[in-house]
Amino acid sequence: MGKIVAGKNGSKKDTITRKASSIIRQKGFPGTSMRDIAEAIGVEAPSLYNHISSKNEILRDICFTVAKLFTEHLKELERTPDSHLSKIEAIIRFHIELMIDDFESVYIAEHEWQHLPEPFLADFKNQRRNYRSRLAAIIQKGIDKREIRPMNPNVCVLTILSAIGGIERWQKSGKKIEGKMLKKDMIQLLIMGLKNK
Amino acid sequence: MGKIVAGKNGSKKDTITRKASSIIRQKGFPGTSMRDIAEAIGVEAPSLYNHISSKNEILRDICFTVAKLFTEHLKELERTPDSHLSKIEAIIRFHIELMIDDFESVYIAEHEWQHLPEPFLADFKNQRRNYRSRLAAIIQKGIDKREIRPMNPNVCVLTILSAIGGIERWQKSGKKIEGKMLKKDMIQLLIMGLKNK
Repeated sequence: MGKIVAGKNGSKKDTITRKASSIIRQKGFPGTSMRDIAEAIGVEAPSLYNHISSKNEILRDICFTVAKLFTEHLKELERTPDSHLSKIEAIIRFHIELMIDDFESVYIAEHEWQHLPEPFLADFKNQRRNYRSRLAAIIQKGIDKREIRPMNPNVCVLTILSAIGGIERWQKSGKKIEGKMLKKDMIQLLIMGLKNK
Repeated sequence: MGKIVAGKNGSKKDTITRKASSIIRQKGFPGTSMRDIAEAIGVEAPSLYNHISSKNEILRDICFTVAKLFTEHLKELERTPDSHLSKIEAIIRFHIELMIDDFESVYIAEHEWQHLPEPFLADFKNQRRNYRSRLAAIIQKGIDKREIRPMNPNVCVLTILSAIGGIERWQKSGKKIEGKMLKKDMIQLLIMGLKNK
């Protein structure tokens, strides 16, 4: 995993997960074998099993670590007395930063979660749904307080999260735009689009 | 293909392409065989070859028809004397309408074009790049005329097209929001985000 998701403790398991993220992102989860992961790390496949039990465990680790990051961040924000618009701005900023700095884990949590086995799959889907509802609730409160234009809050959530998801394209096509500018202007466009005059 | 892309002439080839789009969207282009397409149409595979030579031909048809639609629309707009912001609004509206009404062909042109054989692949990539540059140029002119906030025009194009691409999620998850509202509010959020005070 990247710097933010895996932290900097640099444990053996972190290294495994980080290298695994990279190869899973390139080959897709179904197309990645334990042997591929071992090769990427530079060890023999059997010795990998000293650290992880299966590739499912890696997928689970990545998906739930990313989900927890977003949920914890949201929980903290919900408790602050800030305006709803500035809460949304902080959420947009956090998403963009993770997409820029920790792309591979966020990409996997976004595109490969369908391969989680039950009961993890149901749990993960539930967390996703819950997260989006809570974003929509903040937007609805912002509309009620006239901080945000009257719009369907679910359309706003869809528009915001999809726009941010587009940073995937930036990552894959050579980062021709400077990251700082991408962050600043994407936040500006989305926030000014939400903001009530 | 859908109503807009295939038109309403209802030729045999249109029917084939429409049904093929649907199955290619579900199974992915590499996973779809001529037999799958024949089954979806309800004919024997050999008789399909009276109408199309290969599944590559179908992919080519879909990708270039969609590309042509967007390019022709853009060309017409470029000639009008409208403000640059209203040109961008018309482009956003057109994209959203195609994503709502003609999802399967637009989806394929967006996600499966990588499987085009050369020289079609290079041609298609070129058209995509050219289209995005022309959108960025309209935004830059709008910034110069103070119709649009000063922002990096490529960030604006990325944000807008990715947000609209999110309608894919709406299509796949049961269209819980009414289409008209989705269109109205997504246009509002993006246009007000661009618009200079």
